[in-house]
Amino acid sequence: MRLPQEIYYEEGALEKCPSFLPKGGVIVIDENLKELYGVGFAKKIGAPLLTIPSGEAAKRFCVVERVLNQLFELGIDRETTLIAVGGGSTTDLVGFVASIALRGLPLVLIPTTLLAMVDAAIGGKTGVNCSFGKNLIGSFYPPKQIVIDPNVLTTLPKKEYLAGLAEIWKLGLVLDLRLWKKKDILLAIQGKLFVTEKDPKEQGFRRILNFGHTIGHALEKVSNFQISHGEAVLMGCATEAHLSQEIGLLQENEFCEIEAFYVQFFSKLPATYSREKLLDAMRYDKKVKGGEVRFVLIDKIGHAASFEGAYCRAVSFQELEKSLAWLESHCG
Amino acid sequence: MRLPQEIYYEEGALEKCPSFLPKGGVIVIDENLKELYGVGFAKKIGAPLLTIPSGEAAKRFCVVERVLNQLFELGIDRETTLIAVGGGSTTDLVGFVASIALRGLPLVLIPTTLLAMVDAAIGGKTGVNCSFGKNLIGSFYPPKQIVIDPNVLTTLPKKEYLAGLAEIWKLGLVLDLRLWKKKDILLAIQGKLFVTEKDPKEQGFRRILNFGHTIGHALEKVSNFQISHGEAVLMGCATEAHLSQEIGLLQENEFCEIEAFYVQFFSKLPATYSREKLLDAMRYDKKVKGGEVRFVLIDKIGHAASFEGAYCRAVSFQELEKSLAWLESHCG
Repeated sequence: MRLPQEIYYEEGALEKCPSFLPKGGVIVIDENLKELYGVGFAKKIGAPLLTIPSGEAAKRFCVVERVLNQLFELGIDRETTLIAVGGGSTTDLVGFVASIALRGLPLVLIPTTLLAMVDAAIGGKTGVNCSFGKNLIGSFYPPKQIVIDPNVLTTLPKKEYLAGLAEIWKLGLVLDLRLWKKKDILLAIQGKLFVTEKDPKEQGFRRILNFGHTIGHALEKVSNFQISHGEAVLMGCATEAHLSQEIGLLQENEFCEIEAFYVQFFSKLPATYSREKLLDAMRYDKKVKGGEVRFVLIDKIGHAASFEGAYCRAVSFQELEKSLAWLESHCG
Repeated sequence: MRLPQEIYYEEGALEKCPSFLPKGGVIVIDENLKELYGVGFAKKIGAPLLTIPSGEAAKRFCVVERVLNQLFELGIDRETTLIAVGGGSTTDLVGFVASIALRGLPLVLIPTTLLAMVDAAIGGKTGVNCSFGKNLIGSFYPPKQIVIDPNVLTTLPKKEYLAGLAEIWKLGLVLDLRLWKKKDILLAIQGKLFVTEKDPKEQGFRRILNFGHTIGHALEKVSNFQISHGEAVLMGCATEAHLSQEIGLLQENEFCEIEAFYVQFFSKLPATYSREKLLDAMRYDKKVKGGEVRFVLIDKIGHAASFEGAYCRAVSFQELEKSLAWLESHCG
């Protein structure tokens, strides 16, 4: 399968340190991976090692500021490559730092989770969270190189693995039937690249990647991130598929197939959940336009509806309420 | 004189509010200009008004965070235009915020100082400071529109006016003899645009704009910003012209002309100054490469030396010491 030049896929890359890996630079790694991968890797390529908190805790403004100061302390210049090793929150955070330090440093991403490999590290988006929502702060900043070592997935916790699958299946629903209910890393990367290269700045087509995320992000937020990103996306995809059926786009038999598959992954809604809070949290979604929340919707499995190139549209309050009621009834 | 489409030059634009000004959006204004221009302007175009501190105090990470939160509080979406009204620190800060809020908002700059009109607002650079130096954090983010109303200059303090002149004259030294010792806003804008369009990401030619700034920025920093940007650039330009002569690039008679003109603007070096501190402060300059400080140098008035397209080079410690001794002897 053809992959673009800047993406390297090699089993054991982190241990073998093949020649395509950058020499020097500064490694920024998830603190939980420091011993497992960081120390040895840093020694091999001769780069200092900075750690950041694991998970969403990395994606905070105070971490951005701290890493920037550590980089300046190390005496970086505009040719210093930042090498991010970790999951999606690491690649999002380090990508953002690389985009604003000295107005842009060369960036290499080494994703260590399935989610980061097929989603976060692909497509040039960076982001940090704030109290109003996820990824509300960020930039478009493509890395110079992405190195994928599938061997690291052997130590990945089941929950994190599921988060990657959630994005692969989402891509299946909106773009490519072949990915639906399956796992194929390279096909998923190709699919995501196809979308992001066609519309790098998310002015239309790229929005299809946001399927399941309007509700998903809001669920994460309402649960104070007790519901993981993966679970939230699974629940969000199913609910937005329900919405697609509700407004008459998706046929019932296809929705039933989606429902039957997804409900096995549903978790209980947290005590902090209420429909009002969920609706409120959606107001900060980046597809909001003129105060209206807009949803990506599918018209069949493997295809998102175009809506004249907007690839999203508003729905009525009644339609949305019905789909949320459906979600609630399956999370009892 | 031809100006590109996105630059509007009109006397009284801020008061007359001509039709090319954006409607709606959010205005972010220097707090000192709120009563003078902000309130009336906001009413006319129907936009909320946010204020930020005046001067360098705006260019702090904590201000970035505060403005972002205020914007999210207002319920912005990706089509909300940010309109910056103020001097260079306002346009730098608001430009940076626009580049990272929702991964990029439309941006309009209305510079109110000579410096911002001919320099800060032109060329797409944004920036904030940190304890290691000025503009170490930032992005390249071109505005959609720049509105220049020369009438606002009538209320500009003399010191701030001089800061604009310092950049115009600098442009004269490195690019265009016609600007040297003169003031011509439109010619200066054209000159800066010529440079920044040729090399938007500062990979070579654009570095000529940094003439006088390696030493200038360090002087500002060592003085704890008691020396203004304008004064620092004037002193920096003269000192880097001395350096150009010292390494045998610039003829003595041309340096003497530069010296005679610039020394009238020199101020006393502050008590916090020492040569060691100045050298230390230069280490964080963005032209540093492999630990070496590099300088833009001129080979005649109106022309920066190319150095095979790098437009900067390192100098020996002895050469630099001689030029700093020259500076010190003229600031007694």
